[in-house]
Amino acid sequence: SFLLFRVKVKNLMSVVMIGKALKLTGYHSESKAKEYKHVCKRACQRAVDQLKAGALAVEAVAAALVELEDSPFTNAGMGSNLNLSGEIECDASIMDGKSLHFGAVGAISGIKNPVLVANRLLSEAQKGKLSAGRIPPCFLVGRGAHDWAVSHGIPPCPSEKMATKFSLSAYKRNKRKMELAEKMDTGQNQTKKRRQSSENENGSGCLDTVGAVVVDLEGNVAAAVSSGGLAMKHPGRVGQAAHYGCGCWAENACNMNPYSTAVSTSGCGEHLIRTMLARECSAAMQSEDAHQALLEAMQNKFISSPFLTSEDRVLGGVIVLRCCRCVEAQPSQNIQGILVEFLWSHTTESMCVGYMSAQDSKAKTHISRLPPGTVPGQSLAIEGGVCRLMGVVE
Amino acid sequence: SFLLFRVKVKNLMSVVMIGKALKLTGYHSESKAKEYKHVCKRACQRAVDQLKAGALAVEAVAAALVELEDSPFTNAGMGSNLNLSGEIECDASIMDGKSLHFGAVGAISGIKNPVLVANRLLSEAQKGKLSAGRIPPCFLVGRGAHDWAVSHGIPPCPSEKMATKFSLSAYKRNKRKMELAEKMDTGQNQTKKRRQSSENENGSGCLDTVGAVVVDLEGNVAAAVSSGGLAMKHPGRVGQAAHYGCGCWAENACNMNPYSTAVSTSGCGEHLIRTMLARECSAAMQSEDAHQALLEAMQNKFISSPFLTSEDRVLGGVIVLRCCRCVEAQPSQNIQGILVEFLWSHTTESMCVGYMSAQDSKAKTHISRLPPGTVPGQSLAIEGGVCRLMGVVE
Repeated sequence: SFLLFRVKVKNLMSVVMIGKALKLTGYHSESKAKEYKHVCKRACQRAVDQLKAGALAVEAVAAALVELEDSPFTNAGMGSNLNLSGEIECDASIMDGKSLHFGAVGAISGIKNPVLVANRLLSEAQKGKLSAGRIPPCFLVGRGAHDWAVSHGIPPCPSEKMATKFSLSAYKRNKRKMELAEKMDTGQNQTKKRRQSSENENGSGCLDTVGAVVVDLEGNVAAAVSSGGLAMKHPGRVGQAAHYGCGCWAENACNMNPYSTAVSTSGCGEHLIRTMLARECSAAMQSEDAHQALLEAMQNKFISSPFLTSEDRVLGGVIVLRCCRCVEAQPSQNIQGILVEFLWSHTTESMCVGYMSAQDSKAKTHISRLPPGTVPGQSLAIEGGVCRLMGVVE
Repeated sequence: SFLLFRVKVKNLMSVVMIGKALKLTGYHSESKAKEYKHVCKRACQRAVDQLKAGALAVEAVAAALVELEDSPFTNAGMGSNLNLSGEIECDASIMDGKSLHFGAVGAISGIKNPVLVANRLLSEAQKGKLSAGRIPPCFLVGRGAHDWAVSHGIPPCPSEKMATKFSLSAYKRNKRKMELAEKMDTGQNQTKKRRQSSENENGSGCLDTVGAVVVDLEGNVAAAVSSGGLAMKHPGRVGQAAHYGCGCWAENACNMNPYSTAVSTSGCGEHLIRTMLARECSAAMQSEDAHQALLEAMQNKFISSPFLTSEDRVLGGVIVLRCCRCVEAQPSQNIQGILVEFLWSHTTESMCVGYMSAQDSKAKTHISRLPPGTVPGQSLAIEGGVCRLMGVVE
């Protein structure tokens, strides 16, 4: 179903969307859903506050991500999943549709807001070359990323402060589950059987990457994404959130492309990397019918992707924003504006989204769910809206 | 100019190509060129030996890379550039056109052959999920990558053994140059001027990433790439060689694509990441005229890429292989074979390539140079060949 929102505003304004693929089953699902909605609302508000203060899309999207990272309920920044060694290593990236610059950090520890490091890499790269003609990095990982951040004024944060009661107990639970699974395997002594037998299980905390897409009052788009990665991942594992073209994508309209597009993805990193889902969705958005194009992209480039033929369940979600300038003839005045379409789609059981334009008093949030009876990883949900942001041409 | 090679062989056989963008200027350029050619020859030979022994393309391409990494003259594995802290951190990745699986390591230290870790990640991922339903990683970085490698039987190598007299003296020279540049800047006290004044310099060891593309006797393609990264890079910096879609790409023919394609890139990592050059070239290769398609891709998706508008010199090179099955009617017999086109193109001053089919007694090597009077980073060279690998249909 395609929901249609129509918002008429007097001045050219902005929309923020927050997405978060998640698995809302089990004991705590209702209270969790409430928390997620709250976080999304605050993130929208934060971005809109920035936009109202004159920030560009890329700054606003970073501000939204900081709010999402700071929540202990999301698997990003504070409260991230622990890896196999019980440590937190985060991935994040950001892309500016205006300059097409990109910044990313992978497997970074001891930094409260990984997205701020990614954003700083982006802005440093825009300043041009370093001393002796060296090219500035766009992607830093591990210890080096941490040290670069600190030397650029981003304060370190003790790792133990980033873990929460919830993430620590999840780690202990996962560790027991793994040890049990491995003990059973040793009994069976058959690697193949082991791998098959456990195929339908899945670390429950693994999918809730956070992301946002923003269009600013000049019509620039930006996208960002941040993730603590899969629960019990191997140390050093980098997921889609740090990977160019996979975690986020933003491209202003240009000669070849009539639409500005911004995409952020969530889900199992390896699937999102190998399908390069953010960039694929962005490219699809240049077709006329955004809803149909996203449906086809999710079906053909993700669920049925030739890159994932060996996977039985392909789990992920995207939030997409596209916009183009439009002129409306009205009797008394020329009204110029931006037509903004925003869509979300996911193959996970559910996804929480929030959105807000700068003239809204508060954000709307929504928990999107797969239709009853459908199978996660094989079916998809798709919804969205349209709004027209208007301004009077002087 | 487009060179045409025709090789007719009795049995269905294989072609290997090795590419290496480099800067052959200054005192040692002639002796260096000779060394590079030798290394390329040995790498071709190694891959062909594997293919003759029945190896698939992905194993053969890994074998070629090992030879390239082991040479102290290449900026990969042994003899890699040192980073800002005087350490060696390597990037490598590999892609199998048959399974479309991908493996990559970034900023890995203390491992002699990073490509073997990437290859092992690829093959482990093909085995399916880990215990407790965990998804195996396709991309590992830093210390975690090193530890994963060692726990999978890949021996560690003391970092001091990987540095060479040449890489150490280059580090000292670069360090002095940097200190001098920064001292001058402090004098001028103008960041902008500093950055501009040094724009035409460039760390001379920065561009010689190594890569290879292979087609095996079943017609499967594979590609790989390995790099020590930019000289004096920040610790933790990851370049295109570890980045999906940027360092290498391989895709067997399928319903949608008539051609199998394999691409490996070399040059300045940040430029190759942001243009996603390997994947772009691979996609371009589905057009009928391979030479024209590569020319346009290098021109429009690299030199004039909208992603690199702020860069004055866009330095990189690609080796490309594409093939399709063809049937030739002959009076006495049906001859079936694979038509293989191989091309190389670069905007760097020069690039060393080698190629060999399984029936050649030795590899051919060639140092491709930009035409005299052209400007590196703004002009390109493009060359290539065709060979028909034939087999009698029984």
